[in-house]
Amino acid sequence: MRREITGFSNPTVKLLKSLRDKKHRKREGLFLAEGLRLLTDARASGRLPQMLVMANGRDPHPLLEALEGDVLASGGEVIVTSADILSKITGKDNPQGVAGVFAEFDTSLSALDRSSANIWLVAQALRDPGNLGTMLRTGDAVGAGGLILIDDCADPFSVEAVRASMGAVFTQGIAQAGWNEFLGWLRAGEGQLVAASLREAVPYRGAPYAAPCFVMVGNESRGLPEDYELACDLRVTMPMKGRADSLNAAVAAAVLAYEVLASLEG
Amino acid sequence: MRREITGFSNPTVKLLKSLRDKKHRKREGLFLAEGLRLLTDARASGRLPQMLVMANGRDPHPLLEALEGDVLASGGEVIVTSADILSKITGKDNPQGVAGVFAEFDTSLSALDRSSANIWLVAQALRDPGNLGTMLRTGDAVGAGGLILIDDCADPFSVEAVRASMGAVFTQGIAQAGWNEFLGWLRAGEGQLVAASLREAVPYRGAPYAAPCFVMVGNESRGLPEDYELACDLRVTMPMKGRADSLNAAVAAAVLAYEVLASLEG
Repeated sequence: MRREITGFSNPTVKLLKSLRDKKHRKREGLFLAEGLRLLTDARASGRLPQMLVMANGRDPHPLLEALEGDVLASGGEVIVTSADILSKITGKDNPQGVAGVFAEFDTSLSALDRSSANIWLVAQALRDPGNLGTMLRTGDAVGAGGLILIDDCADPFSVEAVRASMGAVFTQGIAQAGWNEFLGWLRAGEGQLVAASLREAVPYRGAPYAAPCFVMVGNESRGLPEDYELACDLRVTMPMKGRADSLNAAVAAAVLAYEVLASLEG
Repeated sequence: MRREITGFSNPTVKLLKSLRDKKHRKREGLFLAEGLRLLTDARASGRLPQMLVMANGRDPHPLLEALEGDVLASGGEVIVTSADILSKITGKDNPQGVAGVFAEFDTSLSALDRSSANIWLVAQALRDPGNLGTMLRTGDAVGAGGLILIDDCADPFSVEAVRASMGAVFTQGIAQAGWNEFLGWLRAGEGQLVAASLREAVPYRGAPYAAPCFVMVGNESRGLPEDYELACDLRVTMPMKGRADSLNAAVAAAVLAYEVLASLEG
């Protein structure tokens, strides 16, 4: 179905705008992604929005027309509105002229097939949605299977995380679990759990990484709890030559993940 | 001098609050840093705030007392105010109870001594202050000499960049220059300019890095201009195994910088 919306107070506009808030995303089971690039990546990964929202007057684009056709063919809705209303929905000054509303995915551990990839990223209590999105993007780059969110992490379906993921939210598996649930799942199959640590750790270059390798980083302020580190199969250290004793969490995950990739493929 | 401020409309409060805005930072030549950890790192690096702002009723701390003593001894000012006013100044819901006002540093290229470090980071038109701060933090970790900002970058003295740098804004050199000015400076001495690129590039692992090595990343959306890439001494590629063709800029800088570090020290 295709329809036009012209008023800020339209209930659909209110619903879409409410999706910037986690509580409403969870209640509706929906999330927002902006921009033709992201929506095209989603389509290429077999994910179509339930609702496609376009600003009127935007330049025609063959990819947008293809997307619109697919959304309508799959029974979804296409909404045409003003650039002002679209920017109110996405909360961004320069909206990209198009946004999509997607159903949130199944994020249970059982939906992951650990044998499908050599590398998996694990984030524990990561609070910054930008860091989560960046980890998804890095995971895509290193050929990871997905990102597992342990304990109380930021929402991977927030607009900020989706944006920072640059489309990887659609290509990477995403699971959410408590620590004990994750550890039980991990130990029920193959898998090496690796963390950057200062405790009885070996240098990260040349460490004995093994697939499937689960690369874990901890909360931005506190790092990983000690017992989580001790439960790891391998603790590695990266050189810290300055005053600081840690890296940004998404940076640490990336430096480690690229080392694991080189080690497993070398 | 030590004084107490109780009113939101106090001119000093207005001045401090205005430092969240780049225009005012430039006009005053001042910037803000929050938190005891950051201020202690600054002090250890020989940088004292001109003005130390503390919330009344905060727990006493020997490091804070030492800092207060040093600021007063150096002719600086100590201001005691309410937690509410402090949070209004820093624009953060949970202020850390203390903030400092610092004079901006000399950011001319001539202030850098390229022989003082094997690695330097270079950011071209990076727009995200969080990315700049993260690059400073990474630079500290790999023992870089500093961060050189080319063309129109975000402000490294913004509250967001200072926060993300985790204190590295005080330990890393920072220079700002246009591309031609930078290239002239670079070619007037030793230095290898390296960028991640898809053009006639070699694998980033095992590439012939040489000190002092200048690791350059480009704008978040557009990457580096082609002529900038062509001016590099070495173009390297990192594996991209997924749909995306690039990494987050601060992540790319870190993966490359750690590779350079391992290569130069190995």
